[in-house]
Amino acid sequence: MTRTQKYRKKKPGLSPGSLVLVGEQKVDTVKITLFDYDQEHIEEKIVSNVEDCFSYRNNNRNTWINVDGLHDTEVIRKLGDLFSIHPLSQEDILDTANRPKIDDLDHYIFVSLKMLQLDSKSNKLIQEQISIIFGERFVVSFQEAEGDVFNPIRERLRLGKGRMRKMGADYFAYTLMDSIVDNYFVIIERLGERIEDLDEEIINKLSKKTLPRIHDLKGQLIQVRKAVWPLRDIVSNLDRTESELIKDGTSIFLKDLYDHSVQVIDTVETYRDLTSGLFDMYLTTINNRTNDIMKVLTMMATIFIPLTFIVGVYGMNFHYLPELDWHYGYHFVWALMIAIALGILGFFRKKGWM
Amino acid sequence: MTRTQKYRKKKPGLSPGSLVLVGEQKVDTVKITLFDYDQEHIEEKIVSNVEDCFSYRNNNRNTWINVDGLHDTEVIRKLGDLFSIHPLSQEDILDTANRPKIDDLDHYIFVSLKMLQLDSKSNKLIQEQISIIFGERFVVSFQEAEGDVFNPIRERLRLGKGRMRKMGADYFAYTLMDSIVDNYFVIIERLGERIEDLDEEIINKLSKKTLPRIHDLKGQLIQVRKAVWPLRDIVSNLDRTESELIKDGTSIFLKDLYDHSVQVIDTVETYRDLTSGLFDMYLTTINNRTNDIMKVLTMMATIFIPLTFIVGVYGMNFHYLPELDWHYGYHFVWALMIAIALGILGFFRKKGWM
Amino acid sequence: MTRTQKYRKKKPGLSPGSLVLVGEQKVDTVKITLFDYDQEHIEEKIVSNVEDCFSYRNNNRNTWINVDGLHDTEVIRKLGDLFSIHPLSQEDILDTANRPKIDDLDHYIFVSLKMLQLDSKSNKLIQEQISIIFGERFVVSFQEAEGDVFNPIRERLRLGKGRMRKMGADYFAYTLMDSIVDNYFVIIERLGERIEDLDEEIINKLSKKTLPRIHDLKGQLIQVRKAVWPLRDIVSNLDRTESELIKDGTSIFLKDLYDHSVQVIDTVETYRDLTSGLFDMYLTTINNRTNDIMKVLTMMATIFIPLTFIVGVYGMNFHYLPELDWHYGYHFVWALMIAIALGILGFFRKKGWM
Amino acid sequence: MTRTQKYRKKKPGLSPGSLVLVGEQKVDTVKITLFDYDQEHIEEKIVSNVEDCFSYRNNNRNTWINVDGLHDTEVIRKLGDLFSIHPLSQEDILDTANRPKIDDLDHYIFVSLKMLQLDSKSNKLIQEQISIIFGERFVVSFQEAEGDVFNPIRERLRLGKGRMRKMGADYFAYTLMDSIVDNYFVIIERLGERIEDLDEEIINKLSKKTLPRIHDLKGQLIQVRKAVWPLRDIVSNLDRTESELIKDGTSIFLKDLYDHSVQVIDTVETYRDLTSGLFDMYLTTINNRTNDIMKVLTMMATIFIPLTFIVGVYGMNFHYLPELDWHYGYHFVWALMIAIALGILGFFRKKGWM
Amino acid sequence: MTRTQKYRKKKPGLSPGSLVLVGEQKVDTVKITLFDYDQEHIEEKIVSNVEDCFSYRNNNRNTWINVDGLHDTEVIRKLGDLFSIHPLSQEDILDTANRPKIDDLDHYIFVSLKMLQLDSKSNKLIQEQISIIFGERFVVSFQEAEGDVFNPIRERLRLGKGRMRKMGADYFAYTLMDSIVDNYFVIIERLGERIEDLDEEIINKLSKKTLPRIHDLKGQLIQVRKAVWPLRDIVSNLDRTESELIKDGTSIFLKDLYDHSVQVIDTVETYRDLTSGLFDMYLTTINNRTNDIMKVLTMMATIFIPLTFIVGVYGMNFHYLPELDWHYGYHFVWALMIAIALGILGFFRKKGWM
Repeated sequence: MTRTQKYRKKKPGLSPGSLVLVGEQKVDTVKITLFDYDQEHIEEKIVSNVEDCFSYRNNNRNTWINVDGLHDTEVIRKLGDLFSIHPLSQEDILDTANRPKIDDLDHYIFVSLKMLQLDSKSNKLIQEQISIIFGERFVVSFQEAEGDVFNPIRERLRLGKGRMRKMGADYFAYTLMDSIVDNYFVIIERLGERIEDLDEEIINKLSKKTLPRIHDLKGQLIQVRKAVWPLRDIVSNLDRTESELIKDGTSIFLKDLYDHSVQVIDTVETYRDLTSGLFDMYLTTINNRTNDIMKVLTMMATIFIPLTFIVGVYGMNFHYLPELDWHYGYHFVWALMIAIALGILGFFRKKGWM
Repeated sequence: MTRTQKYRKKKPGLSPGSLVLVGEQKVDTVKITLFDYDQEHIEEKIVSNVEDCFSYRNNNRNTWINVDGLHDTEVIRKLGDLFSIHPLSQEDILDTANRPKIDDLDHYIFVSLKMLQLDSKSNKLIQEQISIIFGERFVVSFQEAEGDVFNPIRERLRLGKGRMRKMGADYFAYTLMDSIVDNYFVIIERLGERIEDLDEEIINKLSKKTLPRIHDLKGQLIQVRKAVWPLRDIVSNLDRTESELIKDGTSIFLKDLYDHSVQVIDTVETYRDLTSGLFDMYLTTINNRTNDIMKVLTMMATIFIPLTFIVGVYGMNFHYLPELDWHYGYHFVWALMIAIALGILGFFRKKGWM
Repeated sequence: MTRTQKYRKKKPGLSPGSLVLVGEQKVDTVKITLFDYDQEHIEEKIVSNVEDCFSYRNNNRNTWINVDGLHDTEVIRKLGDLFSIHPLSQEDILDTANRPKIDDLDHYIFVSLKMLQLDSKSNKLIQEQISIIFGERFVVSFQEAEGDVFNPIRERLRLGKGRMRKMGADYFAYTLMDSIVDNYFVIIERLGERIEDLDEEIINKLSKKTLPRIHDLKGQLIQVRKAVWPLRDIVSNLDRTESELIKDGTSIFLKDLYDHSVQVIDTVETYRDLTSGLFDMYLTTINNRTNDIMKVLTMMATIFIPLTFIVGVYGMNFHYLPELDWHYGYHFVWALMIAIALGILGFFRKKGWM
Repeated sequence: MTRTQKYRKKKPGLSPGSLVLVGEQKVDTVKITLFDYDQEHIEEKIVSNVEDCFSYRNNNRNTWINVDGLHDTEVIRKLGDLFSIHPLSQEDILDTANRPKIDDLDHYIFVSLKMLQLDSKSNKLIQEQISIIFGERFVVSFQEAEGDVFNPIRERLRLGKGRMRKMGADYFAYTLMDSIVDNYFVIIERLGERIEDLDEEIINKLSKKTLPRIHDLKGQLIQVRKAVWPLRDIVSNLDRTESELIKDGTSIFLKDLYDHSVQVIDTVETYRDLTSGLFDMYLTTINNRTNDIMKVLTMMATIFIPLTFIVGVYGMNFHYLPELDWHYGYHFVWALMIAIALGILGFFRKKGWM
Repeated sequence: MTRTQKYRKKKPGLSPGSLVLVGEQKVDTVKITLFDYDQEHIEEKIVSNVEDCFSYRNNNRNTWINVDGLHDTEVIRKLGDLFSIHPLSQEDILDTANRPKIDDLDHYIFVSLKMLQLDSKSNKLIQEQISIIFGERFVVSFQEAEGDVFNPIRERLRLGKGRMRKMGADYFAYTLMDSIVDNYFVIIERLGERIEDLDEEIINKLSKKTLPRIHDLKGQLIQVRKAVWPLRDIVSNLDRTESELIKDGTSIFLKDLYDHSVQVIDTVETYRDLTSGLFDMYLTTINNRTNDIMKVLTMMATIFIPLTFIVGVYGMNFHYLPELDWHYGYHFVWALMIAIALGILGFFRKKGWM
């Protein structure tokens, strides 16, 4: 379980804007893909040399450069120079422990978000930072590793249907963010299913593993919450910004994205409520079960303790112990003991403890 | 128990504005009803073909089109085209997992709300999304299934009494929303009765089913809360909007609706407080009962443990054990044991444990 | 215990502004009293016919009409017509389950508050709705039943001392509200005394009734809170309104009323804190007491279990059991048992468990 | 323990502005002291007759009148008339159950605060209301009883060093408030020490008194919180007021006072967190201790229960019970019992329960 | 454990602006270092006499004076006079128990922050106050003791690379603050590791020390929270101030610092959530373990109690007890007892308690 983050690699005291990767290197080589498109034309290529991107900078089409892998800081620096990206923004791209954020500079807007995935085997939550920088006719996106979340967008871009190729870089950046937020719903649904499963498990087949599972779920909800909570402010800032980079037509889509963000946050909060209810339910169920066991012991003990005393009495070796000589003494003792046992059982039943 | 929602059918990466039904299909066929009215005339019909609505678009009367059933996306698209409804709004109509929301576009206002019902047999909470779109002289409403919540409105429309036929589409949309909110009070009252019942049950006839009932109630309150919480913002936005679609005379009704919304939310919060108090009460009652049982065991054990020891002593087979030969040894032992038992009882009474 | 409200009588789907009493009828006949006054003159009468009030409408004096009993909706309608009260306000007067609220219409201000009383026998909290409508030179107040809370005001009115007869209807409405808020302090003090009593009870004479008492107190604080919480907003709106009905000289009194409202809310919140502390204290005290009982059992059992074993050993019937033949065997066993008992006691004392 | 306040003496229905002391009379006679000063001169006297103050009203110096004891309402009325103090402010001076507040009237500012003291013997928190009224060249302060909190200020006034004699009445009022807030730190430090002591006590020497001590501390923190919480708003209002009574030079001191207020509130909240942590710690420690005791019982019982059964077996009186006739039967039984005991101990050790 | 602060040395009633060190003296001698630099030149010296700084005041370069050790109030007063620092700011420098704050005066800005360190041996959190005052071309910083947190800054200053020597005093002050905030991440990471360790410990090797460790961690998080919580407001005030001391180019760095502050606060809150989850987990684990022990006892007792009763029966000495004379009586009893034991075990297994 690693629900706490590592900030190790960043040495305190470094000059602001220093380019150091905070976090692990997740891929071997950096992969850069480029799309250059307008309504009529589209060009797609895999860039081996950052310098190959330079010629696309000043044409009249929209350019989308996607970088998978952050360990080669030289790539970030060169792209940064090409699009005049402030050193602090470059640092933010590399700081994968960073909180999701938005920075509105004059000639570009920087957005960083968290991509979430539930590893299907270990059920662990994997988090990846995605940074998106967009300005007039360009979008540059940075991922820690190669992922498939943007593939449907690539497909739509190639097909050229819908609004995407007609609208500007701001709409394209929105599309990228929208696909990340859409993906949150997948995670949330999976977590919702786990809540249902745990609910079922607590009522019907409680086991030693139930507690760690609840604990795990709680931790993951805290993690998801931390990733999605800043989303609302980011999208709302994007919508209310006075930046000229956001065109009028995009606003309604940002409003829609905002609604989705609120829904994600809302659902995560509801799930936290439900999970804390699960925990209460777990505790109470465990408690009730222990009480059931104790009740059996108590009844056993309460019935047999006086009986055992009685047989002890007649096991004493006194020379003068008159009952021992009675002919029906033994039967009398049995009758007495049965009467006592029934009396105690009756008392229990009257109290409603059986 | 399904207190978590399904988002399954929406594939991440779909283009924004794609029309896909999120949720289950609840009816077999789409039913469209149309009311066309002004102060003097009223026409009512069941529309079999969407195109039949088109002629009502540009007359001078108010038109209310109600659609029951969402699975035929073609119907939504055609109505959308007729009233120039933005693709994102169309998508929202179909996204039944959506959070209640309001969108204020230039020529119409989109509101989506949750209709709540308590299934009388299973005691489950059923939730249905209702979307209302209204503009200049038209209201279109979409329900997942045919329901009876709008029947009183139809009746008032036919009778033509009161304000309804005199006022515009905004007032009519308010009427629809008002009837949904009125309906919340029915749910809330039912939940309130269940709180009273559980309160009674915990004090007088606690059973194995009490805990799941509390758990269930808690879950339903979380669900209701999620459905009604956005209501306040929606109504308040509607009241404060600068849209020309909201006429002056409607404002006081929206203020009233706002008060009702606040009261619903307020009551749900109070019920959450009360339910969490119920849970504490349940735990404490269970705990006290266990303590009562334990007290009986403890008293039994504490009294008989030393007595059993004493009879054991005189059950020993030592050749030289002088007390055994005393003539009143047996009576003496009984006297001793009674004294000890009384002593222990006295100690318990002094301590206030009996 | 009825801490949840009834909304039964209001049928969903009724036209807004329909006059239906929500709640029970609390008196047999409606009683209407009228005061008509200015600085020099005062007239007081009991009105049997609503129409008798009409002549006081347009004179130059202030008129206060108080209505006790709400079941005769005709009375409300006629008074409503006389003072041009909006149908929605009329509906609010009858909706006794309503949340306290303020509505600022052009020619009058509508305020509804909750009157609270603690029934001295059953210790139940009784809640009554009081609606106050005031405009230029008139105040109309509606109560569910005849009460004595306004009696001191009637007295001051008759005596004509102080500001009351010199100032306008707004000041008079303030006086009514002030007397309701003053009354809250009586309730709060009573609840405060119950907290003190319960605190004392938990420490010194805990009983079966303590838990229901705490539970009851908690429920009542939730109820009081619901009644007083909206007060702050109401008074603050009244103070900040731009309505010309509020004269300059009244503002400082409203500010004072606001301070009192905040103090009531503040104290209720503090009492909730204290009550939840009481509950923790109760649980811990119960728990500690159980532990004390268990400790006695544990010590008894721990001492006698090995002793009983030993006497059992020498109760065995083996033919060859050498100790039985020793002359001091019996004394030796006693010595052994006393040594063991002391050893265990010593262990307990060392551990600090005695 | 009296953590709830008394409002008894104020009868609901009294006219606003009526002068009635709410709370107990704390001193026998009212003591009035007067300081009249400017940069060069200072006059100090004990006033036996309120009328003696009148001549100081209209000179050009600052006048500070301090009143100890509130039961003589005539004194308050006369001073009120002298400085044109509104009847509601006069009422507030006497309402010692009031919440700390600020009122900004045209020609004076009214501030009421709570003075806190920890009685060193009973460890109870004593609360006293201090009202400060200041205007152009006058400050009047009212205390419930004579205290020493203003003594250092008197001393600084007599010495005439520092800013105090140079600056106006607003600065002087600030000085009074500052000395009250400074005093809070003393209380807070004492409460902090008690938290440390309780922390130590729970870990090392838990006793019957620990729980009431925590309960007491919690109650006092709630009380302190209620007294200091309004402070922030009061000082912030004072700083932001547009009243001409606050001179420019005083603003920086009010900002400083504001920072201190925030720090007091902040620390109280932190202490509440710590105390609730103490309570959790107490519960867990008690629980762990009970578990330790139970563990000893469990081990004792688990070992001896089967052994006692075995010796019981050979205590039976069957005529045909072969083992009894074996020569080494007794030794064999001992060997068996030791083996069983060791087996159980081994099981416990393996499980980590020892 | 000292999680509560000392305010001892400050006597209530002191004149505002009095220079008294609140807190302990942490170093023997005050150490003053001075850097005087512009883009081309840099001078660095250790100042033995405060007066030596005076000549640097009015040159055209930036001057950074760092003071380690606060006990010599004369140093603070002289530097205060040199840079016209208000007595209240001087007091704040010495008040090490103060809350982090910002004061914006006309000619300088005062910022105080908390430096945090985790003592590697005792695992205690050490807190030190750092005050930074900057104005036109000067920065003065005060530390309680000599530390190494500013060393990297000194190094960058000497090397003269990057922005630092080119930009003004505001940027330099930002650099100091940034290095303090960067340092928080180190603390936070250490606390995060402790959470992971405790999580591991609770699941796998729970011991007596686990509870104090959780308690300790909780206390430290409360402490860290108190230190970092005001940070957000401070940085945000700094960014939004209209002071001319903050140049345009610095704003983006302050925005970055703000993001870091929010991240620190966010992570501390998340850690508080996780720690409270740890505590729940601890309680539940302890509880489950006790239940396991009790279950063994219960099973032992439930099986042997009736068996011991049976052997007691046949240990009775009745003259007429027929079974004793049966030849297979003994075998029959064994068979009976084994049957009973198996029956009970079967019951337990059926109930799922084994």
